[in-house]
Amino acid sequence: MTSSPAIDPGRVLADLDELARRTGGPGGARRLAWTDSWRAARRLLVERLGEIGLAGDEDEAGNLWATLPGVSAERLVLGSHLDSVPAGGPLDGALGVLAALEVLRALVEADGFPALTVALVDWADEEGARFGHSLFGSSAATGALDLAAVRELVDAEGDALPRVLADHGVEVERIATDLESGLDGAFAYLELHIEQGPVLEAEGLPVAAVSGTVGVERFLLRFRGAAAHAGSTPMNMRADALLAAAATALEVETIACRHDGRGTTGTLTVAPGALTVVAGSAELGVDLRHEDAAELARMRAEVLRAAEEFAAGRGCLVEEAPVWRAAPTAFDPDLVERARAAAEAAGGRADPMPSGALHDATVVARVLPTAMIFSPSRGGISHSPEEHTDAEDLRAAIAVFGEVAIDLASGRERAEDGARR
Amino acid sequence: MTSSPAIDPGRVLADLDELARRTGGPGGARRLAWTDSWRAARRLLVERLGEIGLAGDEDEAGNLWATLPGVSAERLVLGSHLDSVPAGGPLDGALGVLAALEVLRALVEADGFPALTVALVDWADEEGARFGHSLFGSSAATGALDLAAVRELVDAEGDALPRVLADHGVEVERIATDLESGLDGAFAYLELHIEQGPVLEAEGLPVAAVSGTVGVERFLLRFRGAAAHAGSTPMNMRADALLAAAATALEVETIACRHDGRGTTGTLTVAPGALTVVAGSAELGVDLRHEDAAELARMRAEVLRAAEEFAAGRGCLVEEAPVWRAAPTAFDPDLVERARAAAEAAGGRADPMPSGALHDATVVARVLPTAMIFSPSRGGISHSPEEHTDAEDLRAAIAVFGEVAIDLASGRERAEDGARR
Repeated sequence: MTSSPAIDPGRVLADLDELARRTGGPGGARRLAWTDSWRAARRLLVERLGEIGLAGDEDEAGNLWATLPGVSAERLVLGSHLDSVPAGGPLDGALGVLAALEVLRALVEADGFPALTVALVDWADEEGARFGHSLFGSSAATGALDLAAVRELVDAEGDALPRVLADHGVEVERIATDLESGLDGAFAYLELHIEQGPVLEAEGLPVAAVSGTVGVERFLLRFRGAAAHAGSTPMNMRADALLAAAATALEVETIACRHDGRGTTGTLTVAPGALTVVAGSAELGVDLRHEDAAELARMRAEVLRAAEEFAAGRGCLVEEAPVWRAAPTAFDPDLVERARAAAEAAGGRADPMPSGALHDATVVARVLPTAMIFSPSRGGISHSPEEHTDAEDLRAAIAVFGEVAIDLASGRERAEDGARR
Repeated sequence: MTSSPAIDPGRVLADLDELARRTGGPGGARRLAWTDSWRAARRLLVERLGEIGLAGDEDEAGNLWATLPGVSAERLVLGSHLDSVPAGGPLDGALGVLAALEVLRALVEADGFPALTVALVDWADEEGARFGHSLFGSSAATGALDLAAVRELVDAEGDALPRVLADHGVEVERIATDLESGLDGAFAYLELHIEQGPVLEAEGLPVAAVSGTVGVERFLLRFRGAAAHAGSTPMNMRADALLAAAATALEVETIACRHDGRGTTGTLTVAPGALTVVAGSAELGVDLRHEDAAELARMRAEVLRAAEEFAAGRGCLVEEAPVWRAAPTAFDPDLVERARAAAEAAGGRADPMPSGALHDATVVARVLPTAMIFSPSRGGISHSPEEHTDAEDLRAAIAVFGEVAIDLASGRERAEDGARR
């Protein structure tokens, strides 16, 4: 290496602008996976890779890889996803991919090979917005894809996932047998992403390391009471399923606060759903999240107990219907500490923060030392054309990501690691 | 009059059975107003009237009247409605009409004219199940029909009310000008109906006088908060519209109990309505009822204040959207006392009870001294094929209704009235 690689965050902002110009439009980002606009986003990435002499190759799961060979074949993987939800924002996913591109660009411009090999990955269909299956490409690359489930998925138009993916060169049936994952032989994965929450903005901080991804318990509580006439049924002779659900929803909040986790009741449907009829049944959707598996399990148990008590107190019954669950994923302590130190040095958060949302990094972390870096989200808003991060904050976050990545690519151990060993 | 008229409740039960046979079917009563099955119900009534030498005539609003002339032209009106909700029960409305028929039959069989004239009325479209406008015929007969609103109503198939009613000989535009109400010149109205609530069943009583109809305040509370990511939004940075609505729903119950009224939240819709998104808005339907207008107004004020406090406490806004209101209607004290005394003497309720539901009697009471008599409803269930009252209880209620009606038709004052005057 003949000169020290220099990250230029301004080039990432320019690439983000160009991406928005090509795929944004007035209704927000239009980079829905497995569509022409997603292809347009990838064409921009491949153009930019070509400008630094690198090719982009898609693997058997539709992930796009570009590799800069180093002196050693040991590989660092940097990435995120270009796909978006329909009418999404300009940054979700794209920031991480284009920041990884900038790292490759800086390394190439340093006129030499990095010590270690560096690969960029643009994961296919992180959002799952079309077929309802998120983290498609990263799950495939880590062997976590449930092919039996994926095979059956159809989009809103009734098009089957295997047929649509075939148009993009992905043969679902061959993923399990033929996929050569770019993660094989890698020693670390690093991803930059917007927070999609309001914490950093509220703290006035431009960047943070991420400690891991929270675990999730998602389930429906189905309350059954008795429909009854609103006028002729005395208050003490009712079995009001809506009120049992309402009391439970409030208790979900109390339990989440008590455990310093998150608890959300985003859905509540009532039947028969008439102004003049006491609710005979109600279905409450519950989403619980916590970094700590034991705390998460306690939250779930407390919510179920509360639901049963509130139901019984009103002469109702309640049943739980599981929807989805995920164990908490802690990122690699060493990588998190590198990211934390760099973030703090750049005026960012002194402590790593958990991610309440899932990312490709969540899946990758199960097979590879992984860390993430967050930039703030204005108003905590994401998955919306209003998604925004101030340029100053983006520059800081890109610089921290680049610094950690180039440091890792150089093969340097952290000072304290060296001292420990 | 040559013999004392004798009510035979068994004949009413037989007529109810025949009505169910002709219009019931396995899916419940099918006597939806302005349909062929409703016509079939009326044909049975007209057949039975013919058997006692009476004709049934429909007025300009579609109400069916039959009149037994008395020595005096002073008129007592007895009635209810043959129409039902789709898949309704065998008793709602039909019981009152067929009990009124039995009174006419008993009077005719007593071989003479009653002292006063007695009219039977089968009100048209009490339920409003097809066009969403209940109490159609009785409102028309009392001058309370809002023609401007009625003109615009369409059913689920898109058929306009005026066109459908024209097929049944009712010219909506002529109701205001041409309707000769059978209530004109009447001195009292009496209606027998099932309770449609669980009170009499719980008390083990076969019959009760009704003191009046509760007032109703029906409105929507629209809470606006902020949609946010369930995973990335800390609990203390949320404006959860669903939780503001849930707290209000529980408070509606508390307020209704405190005022000895009724408060129901039968609808709650949430947006965006996703398990992973904090509710940005929620719409809660509220129905408050009380016999006393001042108490009802206090209940409403307390609910609105609670909604505003719960909203403000969560960083949400709330707006009220009125749906419907009705003032409480007290029935005629003298008639209620006659009914109460007869009910108590027959082993029924010692005190009159309020009706939480509206009836044709509610509208009629605004222009004419009115009373109602209730029979129990098994499980409080109505508007359902499961609607049922034990034959023994039906017999008792029909007997009490018949006794009061025949007493009124005889022109006898109540003993204590006579003493008072």
